[in-house]
Amino acid sequence: MSAEIITIGTELLTGGHINTNVSYLSEKLTSLGIETCFQTSVGDNYPNLESVLSEAIKRSEIIVVTGGLGPTADDITKQAVSNVLKTRLILETGIVSKIERFFKDRKKEISSNNYNQALVIRGSMIINNKIGTAPGLIIERDQNTIILLPGVPRELKPMFKDTVSKYLKKKYSKNLVIKSRTLRTFGLGESVVDEKITHITEKCSNPCIAFLAHATEVDIKITAKAGNQNIADSLIADVETQIRNALGDHVFGADDETMEKIVGAILTLRNKTIAVAESCTGGLISNLLTNVSGSSAYFIESIVAYSNEAKIKLLHVSPQTIEEFGAVSSQTASAMAKGIKELASTDYALSITGIAGPTGGTSQKPVGLVYIGLAHQSGIDTSEHKFFGTRDIIKQKASQTALDILRKYLINQA
Amino acid sequence: MSAEIITIGTELLTGGHINTNVSYLSEKLTSLGIETCFQTSVGDNYPNLESVLSEAIKRSEIIVVTGGLGPTADDITKQAVSNVLKTRLILETGIVSKIERFFKDRKKEISSNNYNQALVIRGSMIINNKIGTAPGLIIERDQNTIILLPGVPRELKPMFKDTVSKYLKKKYSKNLVIKSRTLRTFGLGESVVDEKITHITEKCSNPCIAFLAHATEVDIKITAKAGNQNIADSLIADVETQIRNALGDHVFGADDETMEKIVGAILTLRNKTIAVAESCTGGLISNLLTNVSGSSAYFIESIVAYSNEAKIKLLHVSPQTIEEFGAVSSQTASAMAKGIKELASTDYALSITGIAGPTGGTSQKPVGLVYIGLAHQSGIDTSEHKFFGTRDIIKQKASQTALDILRKYLINQA
Repeated sequence: MSAEIITIGTELLTGGHINTNVSYLSEKLTSLGIETCFQTSVGDNYPNLESVLSEAIKRSEIIVVTGGLGPTADDITKQAVSNVLKTRLILETGIVSKIERFFKDRKKEISSNNYNQALVIRGSMIINNKIGTAPGLIIERDQNTIILLPGVPRELKPMFKDTVSKYLKKKYSKNLVIKSRTLRTFGLGESVVDEKITHITEKCSNPCIAFLAHATEVDIKITAKAGNQNIADSLIADVETQIRNALGDHVFGADDETMEKIVGAILTLRNKTIAVAESCTGGLISNLLTNVSGSSAYFIESIVAYSNEAKIKLLHVSPQTIEEFGAVSSQTASAMAKGIKELASTDYALSITGIAGPTGGTSQKPVGLVYIGLAHQSGIDTSEHKFFGTRDIIKQKASQTALDILRKYLINQA
Repeated sequence: MSAEIITIGTELLTGGHINTNVSYLSEKLTSLGIETCFQTSVGDNYPNLESVLSEAIKRSEIIVVTGGLGPTADDITKQAVSNVLKTRLILETGIVSKIERFFKDRKKEISSNNYNQALVIRGSMIINNKIGTAPGLIIERDQNTIILLPGVPRELKPMFKDTVSKYLKKKYSKNLVIKSRTLRTFGLGESVVDEKITHITEKCSNPCIAFLAHATEVDIKITAKAGNQNIADSLIADVETQIRNALGDHVFGADDETMEKIVGAILTLRNKTIAVAESCTGGLISNLLTNVSGSSAYFIESIVAYSNEAKIKLLHVSPQTIEEFGAVSSQTASAMAKGIKELASTDYALSITGIAGPTGGTSQKPVGLVYIGLAHQSGIDTSEHKFFGTRDIIKQKASQTALDILRKYLINQA
């Protein structure tokens, strides 16, 4: 069975308004084993709404409609649905008295258009709205189940959870469980990830595999359908093992495991500490590391040494090194890592120096050129990188790369 | 003329993913005077995509399609569009060489499926993608203009702004100008902002005024429609003056002026410098300050002193101060500001110490308690704050507040 979500409201079409209902409903339907195939938004416009409703009842079994149940003239949902289904609206006296009580309780005056909300589609089931005055409706007609809900998220969500979810589970759930797991990779582009695991994805339909490329990582989402939780888990685990084998340590985590959480977990486990000397990333590495709750156990201090003077004075980089090789150089990165590790007396230290742009680049040292240093028990490793993008993206990529270098060093020490 | 937006991607239909492209595009189309009548989302599913495209070309003049332009097998947009328009795909050699250069520059291996991105619809105009490898396309066919854009927001936005917007303006704009300006406020809740300017908003229909509340600020969007640019600008300017009078220095900037840009602009103008000593914000203030291009002119250095040892050793906070008043105290904040200002020899210094949570709070010093210090020419000011929210939100609110304290000090010195 497939579902379609229709969201109604002119505010959705003029922009600046994020449609959270559609994301909420899609997620809930997916978890019930119901696949959403179409999402449509239209304004408070009668002919447009009728046309999408007519299309929807032809192609989708379950149709969830949100919005347009208010008391004013531009709330046209019930009228349009009754027209498309060739039925009519009737006044539900139970709702009339509920509306009258609602206004009386709030000592507000009731206006005649409030009674519009007591009109329901003949033969429909009423979904109680505990927060507002607009009831929801469930209409079963031939092959279709049409569910009408108000557009206000704080009304819609409890109505879905308390009534619609139970109704759908009873009617449609064929003991089907849908589970997902997202593997997070770093250091490979989307097309390379695709190519490396194409032998796994191409013969795989359950679980199904989807890619999501972000600025600094490529995610692989594995979604399994099964008769129960255990079978779904084992379907996912099998594919996960194959993908991890194919991609090796490019897979840095799963689901909500960020790079900084993984690094933090290893440092905590081994009771090790870290300090950071940043130049071009301007505090972003430290900010990421300290976004993790409990990071004070391993993160000691960091110095953002933007000026050459700060590199010399705070991190004890020698003026000769900067003069001879430049502030953006492998030698300076190495000296920064040495300096902060000694200063903070930590087990590890990361350093980073580069050109975040958009200005400050030269032909020899272009925007995006970054040197990363890692000081550890047995010395200092440095590496050269070239990143592309805006200042913001270069800072993000450089920070993630530095954390990834630390992560790989730590897992190879295990 | 009416527009339809079609967004493609299975991740949109399974939930947990917010569709920001559709909101961005609707807003941009509205500002061009083009009304969006339908928004549709479908998965990476060939027959479903074909069916919505066929419907769209019947009912909408302008169709903007996002997603499905990647290199992998589930990227089906161009094939589906060419099928619906009964045309075919051809290989564009200019794009081939651009893709090859892209991979060569990044020293990455090109895979055969990357060449899919060089296929274009016969007779289409190519929209250059400066960030990624997928070009966009503009196709004019009979009554329809079909615009294909990648689904990645950081690629889509510059492509829309640089090319599509200009194209649509030239082709469709009918002497109606829609202009918007967003005033950004800090330090007041949405309902207080609303109350303070309700005498302006209630008698105002053109320009119209909308509120947008974020975690750390409340934005006020002023939108005017007029026959030309000058009239629209003067309608906006009149309301802007009234709002600024009502809200005073709570308005910190407009449009893309962030708090850190404003602070940076004042420091640059006056040729002054700043250093930062951070504890609970873990580098976020420094990261924000250095997100501004050109910040190396005024941002000298910062120290993220997470441990007490780092506060004592690096910032010269006396152990007695920490013992007597605690690391989270007005006295420690003051000593941190003094320490970093002397160390960096700057004109100003900010310091911050607090409890970001979720653990580490006590009944006397709860999660969210933060002290901020500002050292300037004539002394050190400290202030106590209590923030609510997750660790992440507390870090954001604390950082914005520190920058706002500096901003207010600077504007009062003027």
